Parts: sequence; structure tokens; C-alpha cells
Amino acid sequence: MRMTRIVKLILENYESDNPGTKSNIARILMNGKLGGTGRLLILPVDQGYEHGPARSFAPNPEAYDPHYHYKLAIDAGLSAYAAPLGMIEAGANSYVGQIPTILKINSSNSWATSKDQAVHGSVDDALRLGCSAVGFSIYPGSDHQFEMMEELREIALEAKQLGLAVVVWSYPRGGDLSKEGETAIDVCAYAAHMAALMGAHIIKVKPPSVHVEQDEAKKAYKDVNLKSLSNRVSHVMKSSFNHRRIVVFSGGAAKDTEGLLDEIREIRDGGGHGSIIGRNTFQRPRDEAIILLNKIIDIYKGKD
Amino acid sequence: MRMTRIVKLILENYESDNPGTKSNIARILMNGKLGGTGRLLILPVDQGYEHGPARSFAPNPEAYDPHYHYKLAIDAGLSAYAAPLGMIEAGANSYVGQIPTILKINSSNSWATSKDQAVHGSVDDALRLGCSAVGFSIYPGSDHQFEMMEELREIALEAKQLGLAVVVWSYPRGGDLSKEGETAIDVCAYAAHMAALMGAHIIKVKPPSVHVEQDEAKKAYKDVNLKSLSNRVSHVMKSSFNHRRIVVFSGGAAKDTEGLLDEIREIRDGGGHGSIIGRNTFQRPRDEAIILLNKIIDIYKGKD
Amino acid sequence: MRMTRIVKLILENYESDNPGTKSNIARILMNGKLGGTGRLLILPVDQGYEHGPARSFAPNPEAYDPHYHYKLAIDAGLSAYAAPLGMIEAGANSYVGQIPTILKINSSNSWATSKDQAVHGSVDDALRLGCSAVGFSIYPGSDHQFEMMEELREIALEAKQLGLAVVVWSYPRGGDLSKEGETAIDVCAYAAHMAALMGAHIIKVKPPSVHVEQDEAKKAYKDVNLKSLSNRVSHVMKSSFNHRRIVVFSGGAAKDTEGLLDEIREIRDGGGHGSIIGRNTFQRPRDEAIILLNKIIDIYKGKD
Amino acid sequence: MRMTRIVKLILENYESDNPGTKSNIARILMNGKLGGTGRLLILPVDQGYEHGPARSFAPNPEAYDPHYHYKLAIDAGLSAYAAPLGMIEAGANSYVGQIPTILKINSSNSWATSKDQAVHGSVDDALRLGCSAVGFSIYPGSDHQFEMMEELREIALEAKQLGLAVVVWSYPRGGDLSKEGETAIDVCAYAAHMAALMGAHIIKVKPPSVHVEQDEAKKAYKDVNLKSLSNRVSHVMKSSFNHRRIVVFSGGAAKDTEGLLDEIREIRDGGGHGSIIGRNTFQRPRDEAIILLNKIIDIYKGKD
Amino acid sequence: MRMTRIVKLILENYESDNPGTKSNIARILMNGKLGGTGRLLILPVDQGYEHGPARSFAPNPEAYDPHYHYKLAIDAGLSAYAAPLGMIEAGANSYVGQIPTILKINSSNSWATSKDQAVHGSVDDALRLGCSAVGFSIYPGSDHQFEMMEELREIALEAKQLGLAVVVWSYPRGGDLSKEGETAIDVCAYAAHMAALMGAHIIKVKPPSVHVEQDEAKKAYKDVNLKSLSNRVSHVMKSSFNHRRIVVFSGGAAKDTEGLLDEIREIRDGGGHGSIIGRNTFQRPRDEAIILLNKIIDIYKGKD
Repeated sequence: MRMTRIVKLILENYESDNPGTKSNIARILMNGKLGGTGRLLILPVDQGYEHGPARSFAPNPEAYDPHYHYKLAIDAGLSAYAAPLGMIEAGANSYVGQIPTILKINSSNSWATSKDQAVHGSVDDALRLGCSAVGFSIYPGSDHQFEMMEELREIALEAKQLGLAVVVWSYPRGGDLSKEGETAIDVCAYAAHMAALMGAHIIKVKPPSVHVEQDEAKKAYKDVNLKSLSNRVSHVMKSSFNHRRIVVFSGGAAKDTEGLLDEIREIRDGGGHGSIIGRNTFQRPRDEAIILLNKIIDIYKGKD
Repeated sequence: MRMTRIVKLILENYESDNPGTKSNIARILMNGKLGGTGRLLILPVDQGYEHGPARSFAPNPEAYDPHYHYKLAIDAGLSAYAAPLGMIEAGANSYVGQIPTILKINSSNSWATSKDQAVHGSVDDALRLGCSAVGFSIYPGSDHQFEMMEELREIALEAKQLGLAVVVWSYPRGGDLSKEGETAIDVCAYAAHMAALMGAHIIKVKPPSVHVEQDEAKKAYKDVNLKSLSNRVSHVMKSSFNHRRIVVFSGGAAKDTEGLLDEIREIRDGGGHGSIIGRNTFQRPRDEAIILLNKIIDIYKGKD
Repeated sequence: MRMTRIVKLILENYESDNPGTKSNIARILMNGKLGGTGRLLILPVDQGYEHGPARSFAPNPEAYDPHYHYKLAIDAGLSAYAAPLGMIEAGANSYVGQIPTILKINSSNSWATSKDQAVHGSVDDALRLGCSAVGFSIYPGSDHQFEMMEELREIALEAKQLGLAVVVWSYPRGGDLSKEGETAIDVCAYAAHMAALMGAHIIKVKPPSVHVEQDEAKKAYKDVNLKSLSNRVSHVMKSSFNHRRIVVFSGGAAKDTEGLLDEIREIRDGGGHGSIIGRNTFQRPRDEAIILLNKIIDIYKGKD
Repeated sequence: MRMTRIVKLILENYESDNPGTKSNIARILMNGKLGGTGRLLILPVDQGYEHGPARSFAPNPEAYDPHYHYKLAIDAGLSAYAAPLGMIEAGANSYVGQIPTILKINSSNSWATSKDQAVHGSVDDALRLGCSAVGFSIYPGSDHQFEMMEELREIALEAKQLGLAVVVWSYPRGGDLSKEGETAIDVCAYAAHMAALMGAHIIKVKPPSVHVEQDEAKKAYKDVNLKSLSNRVSHVMKSSFNHRRIVVFSGGAAKDTEGLLDEIREIRDGGGHGSIIGRNTFQRPRDEAIILLNKIIDIYKGKD
Repeated sequence: MRMTRIVKLILENYESDNPGTKSNIARILMNGKLGGTGRLLILPVDQGYEHGPARSFAPNPEAYDPHYHYKLAIDAGLSAYAAPLGMIEAGANSYVGQIPTILKINSSNSWATSKDQAVHGSVDDALRLGCSAVGFSIYPGSDHQFEMMEELREIALEAKQLGLAVVVWSYPRGGDLSKEGETAIDVCAYAAHMAALMGAHIIKVKPPSVHVEQDEAKKAYKDVNLKSLSNRVSHVMKSSFNHRRIVVFSGGAAKDTEGLLDEIREIRDGGGHGSIIGRNTFQRPRDEAIILLNKIIDIYKGKD
């Protein structure tokens, strides 16, 4: 694997990590069609846990099969595939060595009575399954946010000592946050910043809206240009240690394909490192999904 | 590093600590422009966690970059730099050996629905990152105060066994405390005393006001001179094992520069060991910040 | 990384290993110019430990620098690079993610007074340095063989649980073995078989001679065709669980380039998986070494 | 699996073992054509380690393949299959659940310069590979006997805690023992007794000869009928806690088929629980081996 | 502490180490009169263990007091002070923070009946005592060399994980080595190389003589210029990963002051990083010792 200059520069930002962890970040950045560009596109499949199988897979029944997602991620030339323990176990041997995997280590579900998640995987699971990273969600704002952060602390330290990368899904919700506030620009930037402060190597946030949630923050945003999504993405990147951490954006609320692609152009122009897109891909037929993913890849390559 | 007489005297107060912990206290007391004077000036950058990146860094956008703070602390000749995990990780290698660092191990944030903090770092993190101390906040008075104190207990014991120093941010809040009470003289003195009792080597409190919060305490303060801030600081120092523990004071509420410098003169005259000042410095342009920090250093050196 | 059919078949032989270990075997089999062919070519640089730096590197003084070997292995398009702890530490960050590495975990040296080796690395080192495998030597026949096997047992179990591959250098020597016997066909086949029985994933042996060392074995070899090296390699492969384990052959005693290339043709024709060649490459000027390595690669590709 | 009365009675003898260990003994006693009879027939394949691959497998080259032995044991309807780590790893997945396996955990080899063995497997290996038991050899009489017994002690304790059975190969040799003494009746009985004393669940010894090795023992044997092998087997069984431990007998020195079958009839009549026969089976063509094994099974069933 | 460019370059060679370990290497390189020059001068006092107190300290009885050595190292402006556990414990508090210390973790003594050392300190001791590094001796060539290397392996891994540096005294002796061979150029270069391969950060060897000990090595040295000590030091540096590791030289056999200073000029000219000199200093009166040490410092500064 010949490292490109841009990937080398990104790796240099992880200056206190050991070569094991850097190898795994490199593996993700060098894989698939975006390999070497410094951009990345990840397929996450944890919706079955979060929303149940029917809501997740009935629109495209082939997606009930864990192998479907492995194959989709590989055939579309993605950077990595992220899923909870059982999904990884169900295909790790069949697709061994064909795509970097991220073991999503905690999840919520539709019946949760609290804004919290169950931790259901471990660093040892990730190692025995050949994963490159562990993934962990936090809900800043939730009544359980501190517990979640403390769980992350232990997993992240262990992962770093044993040479894995740490991906943090930072999704503000709960507590005093309004529904609109969950994607507010101040909230998204803050969420990315907190994940970086907790030692995340790769951060996942939602595309930020123009709304500013916190009254105390309004003054700070007076002179910040928030008009376009690319401006707002740029602000999130600045909040992620001034671009020193890899940040990927979720596909956001359901929208038509053109709306999604426009959004991705803005993420690219704002300096975002890439996207992590689940439902928007596996809920459509495989052929359409691959066409869509390739369009996204072309956008990140600057071809569109 | 030649130890001065005054630093030796301060170190003698930590009589049951091992030489490892004392080395790290000494490192902080001997570093920078105040090195050897027995006074210290620390740059803390955890506001991004506590208030979000925009409120913290928009006034001076260069401060979004973790390297900015390392460089500011080094160039201004400060005693130490304190920050959460990610901030330290992002610069620990570039600035290795150039300034003592304090790993701030817990934090709250703007969305907290309880007066508590998340523990997001560990003693092992501090060792692998070359830190001299771990920093920990407690909220005496909060409904979560006992949990926080019990977390501190474990971290402090481990830190002391492995030769690190323990810095405690003792910030009363929550429970029956009034807002005004958070900086009341009886409360600040009590907070410093509790931190000392819990085994802190360095204690951070807010500059105390003349208000006395607790009715039961009023009688005790009848004959104590609380008129000037220096009198009150002197009382806090007395409450900190009769000056046997290092106590530093935060910059307090936003005020003009002269107001800040006056406050520091009072802290000095009251026998406080120094200041720990974040927003007041990194939210202004670097040149102004360095001028301000040098003025503070001069005050502590007795030149002003 | 698209897995080829032949690599998939090889991986299937490791049927009780976890996907983590298989990923790392796959990484080696899919890397470099032989990637995907089911053959492999490894650069080992432990001669400095075994014979001292001058005997190893004086013929080509650039090779004193650990970066030289990383770069040679990468530029020549090899499958993996194997070396002791310090050599890997000295380049692991500079060449992160560019070539699979094998941490050689024990070594002898020129002054050894017993047929034994010092264990000087660990599975945790391999993980923090991002290695794909640990490498371990045993000396079947030596008075210390049982100790060495017992050290291997612990390291192999730990490596397999944490998803690493295990490479065993099986070099009979000592005890009642004659010097000639060290490369005897019965001895090499036996050595490969024992390594397989101890759970090695990749086995390194010397190219076997036509000599049969053990009197008790002579009868068994009566009907085995041992005439050509390729016949003998084929017998070693049969002894390695009937081709179910990857076996690579060392370069053997110093010989001219044509002699070496002929030997490699025979290894290929006998079904050997590849070569592990150190001195024969790094002791000549870099340009010549790369030409030689490319010739070997062409042979394994069946082009020569 | 319906437990027979005789198997229940045997299991009752293991009265201090936990249900996990008993389940595994039961699995072996209930498997194959002898399942439920209280007799057992085990295929051991560790000769490759002990004598090298050619001496072991050249007479029947299909036997080089680890799958051959799994298949032979399953197709012949045996009770269990015993082999070292690599042999089990190479087929454990393909034949999962089809036959109880015994992980042989230590071995000697042809080049050993001491009467000792290398420990090359562990209880954790046995668990991850789904084995029912671990197998361990001791050499009572050898200069290394105490080390071997101490290794056994640790492995047996761990195995029992984790619900595995322990099979002990008790083969006196070395020290002051004559070659003839290795199969002497006093020595075999003593060896079986020691294995029982060390906590073995299943004991393997050689068929005892009429020779009495120890002068001090001769008086004790004055009135014991040792004439026929069945008498001597009966004495060994008495020495194995008065038939409370399962004892199986090796095939002994090479002899013709009729000689072997006669020996087995005597073992049966003496109350031995069964046989463990390797070379006598896998060194002949598969068809002949299956015929032979079925004849042995018939003998143990009392049909012959 | 402002890092100089040359120290930064040296630290970059430790590319896989964490910032904690690098801080401690930096501490040594930035301390004392040679601080920032990339050279270093260490005072080791383990002769009491090795030769007994009278042989060590009778020539200068003040040296019986552990404080004497701390004070000498500090007053002379040395880089670090190295000693066994008790010596460090006896002064660590009095001289806390005044000089980096190296806890010498193993030692031999005059009554040793084998070429081995007792390990009498630990990484935890080093941390509680505020040491910057652990020091460990190996005797390549000795019958116990493999055990010593295996002890080093565990200590070095733990030290690196907890942010300490590792100093290795590599002193070939025992086995087949002649007395003259202990300082032979091939032997010293080999010893330095092995220490580097085992992961040492700082290596201590003896100044090499012109003698070549190993017959097999003579050819390799045919074209190496070994005439002057500076040539030979240069060869040792090349053997230490092509100058990528810090190497310091002992004072060698007793000689007059001018002889010692000449030797140091040669070490400097050959690119050695510095000296580690015990008896030559503490066995003379303090004033003379300080004059001598300052002369050595001047030489390393290039002033003489």
C-alpha cells in the first residue's frame, strides 16, 4: 500500500498515537475508490438495532442478510463497513481482509426508556474479528451523557494501547435540547469538539442546520458565516481541532437523491472528510445503491 | 534545574508524597518565567468542553487549533498547561518536554442536566502523554458531589502511587447553594479545605466574595477581616492547611484588564500561589494575551 | 482489497482461526507484487542480532540504517518485512501502513553458548507497532528445544486470541544432529511438520538436501523420490499437513545468483509458497537487490 | 443422547468432578459404535510429532492430511480422536461436532536429548477448539518426571475448573528403569495408579508383561496370578482405584493382526475399558483399517 | 524548557514511542550544562553493588554518603544520575526535581558465581521515585544472556507503556569471549546493535579497542578504518541504527586524566553522544572531580 501525501499529512495529526493505531486509520483511508484521497465513505448498518429489522430492511428484503452489506460495501468500493457485533461475526470470515471493519460497540433501540445505549461489544471482540476500529455513540445532552462518556474513556484507552482506531458517533439529544437543536450548528460543532476532546480519531456528526440552539452561543456566531451548508461544515471542521481530526457526516434526514448529492457537495466544499451513509443506500435496490454510492465517490473525488 | 529555597519549602509541605509526585510538583514550580518564585501561572483550556468551541474560540479563531494553546503557554513562559485528553493528544508530541502538562480528567458541558461531570481520561493516559499531573473537578454541594469525590479518590490514589501530582478544581454549586453563595468566602474557604482534605496537591478555587452563605458560619466570621480580597484570599490560604497546600485562583467573571490585574495583586498580597486563567487570555489576540500574561507574571514577581 | 480465489482457498485451510488472524494472513498474501498469487516473498533482517552488524551490513553500508530495509521491502514490492523489536520501532511510524510487518520475537547471537534464543518481544509490542504477525524460532533437536516450544505455546495462544498470525522459523540443530543433518530431507520435513503441529500459520524451513539423517527414517524414504530439490520441497509440503500450511524457504547457503534463482524455481515447482531471503538481498547494492527480488517475483509468478 | 445404566455407573465414580467435566466424559463414552457400552476405542495421531512425518505416514500417504484422521475416526465409529494442536486446528471446523476430540498437549520427538516433553497446547486451546479433554504424557521414572507431573497438575486443575476431562498417558521410562521394565506388570500397575492419584479421568498405559521389575515388589506379587494378559490387565484395573477410573491400553509393539486382536480380547476379559490404537490403523490402507477397527469394536461388544 | 533543533532531531528518531517516553528522553538531553547540545554526561554509581563499598568509596570517604553523588551530579551540571534502588531512595526527596535520575534495576556483585545479575528494582519504583528512565545491564555472551534479555523484555515494555525511557548497559562477557574480546571493536559494535534491537533508547558500551575478536567477523572489518578511537566510535554509532539511537561510553579502564580526556575527544569526534563516568569522578576529591567533569563538558561542547 503506497501512502499518498495527503494521507501522510492526515496521519501526522495523530501525533501521540502508536503505529498500530495509525496503521488502522491508514487502512481505512487507503481502502476502496477513495483510497489515498484523504476522503472516506463508510457504510454503517446499525439501524436494525436502533429501529428493528422490518423498518430497516423491509424496503429492500435482501438487506436482511448480513452478507448483503459486506458485499455492498466491497462492491461499491467504500472505505469501511461499520456494524454491531453479530453483523460483523456473521460475515467476518467470508469477507476476511476485503474491507476494513468498524465494530460498533454500543446501541440504543426503539424500546429504550432512557437516552442511553447498551455496550454490547469489546476491544477483544474487535481484535478477534480483525476490525480496524471500534465505534461508540455518545448522546451529549442526555441525562446519561456522563455515563456514556465514561464507558467511552475505558474503551478508547484500551483500543489505543492495542493499536485500534476509535470512531465516535456524537449525537446530541435528550435533556434540554429541542428536536431542532439536535442538528443546530452550535450543537453539531460542540458535539464534534467534545468527541475530539475525548480522544476520538474519527468523528461522526449530522450535517448542521443554520439554527443556533443556545442563547449563550448566539453572540459567538454573530460574525460566523453560516449561510451555506459548506460554511457550516467548515465551522464544524474548525471546531474539530482546526481540521486535525477526521470528521464524517451522516446522510441526515430522508431526502431525494439530488438533495443528498447536493448536501455531499457542500460537505466536500466545507472540507468535511466524508460521509457515513446507511439507510439512504441499503434501503434501495442494490444496483441503485451502487450507482448512488459511485456518484458520491465522484463528488468526493472532485469530479462532480 | 536548581531548586530555589522557596520551592524547597513548598515541597516540604508535601511530606508524605513520594519523590515522583514531588518531582512533578517541582517541575511545575520551576518552569517558565515564575520558575523558582513559589508562584505559578497556569493556562487551562477546557472551555471548549464546558461551553462549546464557538463561545470559546470564535473571539480569536486561531485558538481553534490545539497547537495554539501549547505555543501560547510556552511562549508566554507559563508554569503549566491544562487541558482534556484530545487537546493534549493533539500536541503532546510536537511540544514534548517544553511545558509541564496537566491532564484534565473530567468535564461538564453546557447541556448537562445534572451538576456532575464525565470522567474522560485516566492516569495511564497521563503517563503515556508525559503529563505532570491529573486535574479533576468536584462540585461540593451538588447532588452528585459524593460520586465525584469517590471518583477523585481512586484517581488520586493511583496518581500518587505512580508519581503524578493531583490538581483539584473545587467549585461549589448545586444543592442548596445560592448562585451568590458559589463564591462566598465561607464557601470558597470550605471548598479549598475539602480539596486539601481529599489529598489534592494543587487546589483551584474562585476568588472569594465578601458574602457569607451559611447562617451557621456567620458567627465564626464575625471577627475575621474580610474587607479586601487580599484578606479573603489570606483566609482561604489559612483554610488550606495554613498555607501548606498550593492554591491557585481562577480569573473569575469577565472584567476589564485593569480589574483583572488588581484582583491578581490582591491574590498575591493575600498569599495565593498564583492564577489559572483561560478565557481572559486565549480569547484575545495572541500579542495582547502575551502582554497580559507578562503583566500578571510581573505582579507575581512583585515588580508591579 | 479484492481477495483472489487462490488466496481464499489458502485461508480456508486455517479453519479454526478467527477472522482477525485470517485478516493478517490475508494482508501478507495480498500485499506487493505477488499479492493474490498465493506465493509470497519476505525480507527478514535479524542477521544483525544473529551475526553482528558488521558481518551483516558492512558489505552494503546503507543497510546499517533501519529505514533502508523498510524502503527496500516496500520498493521491491515484497509481501512482508520481518525484524526484531528495535528495527521495527525505528521505522514503524515512518512507513506506517505501507507493508505488513512480522515482529521477530526471539533471537540467538554469535556468542550463544547454548542452542537457545532470547525472547525479546511480545504480542503487545506487535499490536502497538501495527504488526500482522509474530515470528518465533525453535531449534528442534537442541537441548533447549522443549523450553523454546513452551515459550512458543504461550506466545502463539495469545497472538491467536488477539488476531495476529504466527510465523515459526523451524531450524533443527544441536543435540545429536550432525551439521549435514540440519538440512537433511527427513529433518526438514520433520521440522516443518512439528511447526505445523504446534499451530504455526506460516512455517520457515531451509531448502532440504538429499541426505537422510535418521537411520530409523531411511526405510520410510525408500520409495520417496528425493532426486530433485522440487521433489524434496514437495515432500516438505506434504509433511506440512498435505499443503494445508504456508511454507516458505530460506535462501540457504551463499551461492551465485543463478544458483539462487534455480533453487527458487525448484521451490516453486515443488509447491513451496515462497521465500524469505535476507542476506542475499540486503548485502548487495540496492539496485542489484531490487533486480534480484524482481527476478524472484517473476519466477514465483511463473514468468521464468 | 440417552445415557445407559453402565455409563451412569462409570460417571458416578467421578464423584467430585463438576457436571461440565462429567458431560465431556459422557460424550466420549456415548459416542460411536461403542457408545453406551462402557467401552471405548480412541484414535491417537501424535506419531508425526514423536517420530516425524515420513516414518508415520509414508506407509499410507493419504495420512499426511489431517482431515484423513478425522474422517477415519468418524467413519469407523470410534469414541474419540486425540492429536496435538495443529492437527486439531486443521480439521476442527470441518468436522465440528462429529466426534469428541482430545487435545494432546505435550509431545517428545526423535531428537529429544532428555526424557521429557514439550508442552505445546493449553486448556484455552482445547476450549476454543471444542475438545472434550486434554491429553498429557508423563514419564514416571525419568529425571524430568517431577517437572512433568507439576505441569500436569496445573493443566489438570485448570481443565477441571473449566469442565474438561483429563487423559493421562502414563509411560514409565528413563532413570533406573530397564527397557524390559517399561512394560513390567508392577511398573504398569504403578504407572496407572500414579495417574489416578494425580487426578486423571482416563488413563492410558501399555499392556503389561509378566516381568516384575522391582525387587522390593516381588514379594507382593508372589500370590498374584499374572499368567495371562487378562489377569495382568485385571491387576492394573484393581490398581486404578479398584476399577473406578477408565483405563485404556495402547496397541503395544507391532504384531500381526491376529496377535493384536487376541491382546484386545484379553484386555476386555481383564476388565480394561478399551484401546487407543494409532499406527496399527492409519499405517494401513483406509479400507483395511476400518475392517480392523470394526473387529476391535466387535470384540469390545462381546461379539467375538 | 525550550527544545533545541538538535534535540528535536534526536527525539524524532524515537518514532514509535509515546510522548511520555519522549519527554523523559528530552529531560535528560535538556538538563545541565550540556542541555540542548545533543550530548550528555551521566554519573553512574553502582560500583558499591558491584565491588563493595570500601573498594568503591574508601579513596574518597565522603562518597559513602548517597547525598554526595546527587550533589556532585547537580553541582557539576550533569545530564542525569544513575544508581540502584537504595541510592535513589536515600536522596530522591532531598534533591527532588534537581536532576533526571535513572533507576539501575539490576546488578551483579563480587560474590557472583555466575555471569548474571539480580533484578532489584521495578518500573513502579522508578515512577514513585520520579525517575526519568530505568537502566538495565545485559551480558551478551554469558551463559545467562538469554535470561537477562528476557528480563529486559518485560521491563522495557512496561516502561514504554508508562512513559519512561530505557537505558541498556550492554557489556559482553562470559562464555567464549576472551578478556581482551570484551572491548573488541566487533564485540562493542555488536553489543550496541543488540541493545538497539531489543528496543533500548539509550545504550551504554565500553570504548572499543582495535582488536577484532571473532574470526568470522575479520573479513567484514577488512575495509573498515579502525585506526583511531574516533573511527571505532563512529563504527559503533553506525551499528546503533546508523546514529538513530543515543549511545554513551563508559570511562573504560583506569588511566590518567589526560588519557581520559583524549578518549573523550575521540568519542566526540566519532559522533558518540556522551559519556557515563563513575569511578573516575567520585573516587577523587570533589573539587578535582568537578574540574574534571567541566573539562569533559567543555570537550563535548567543542571548546577543547
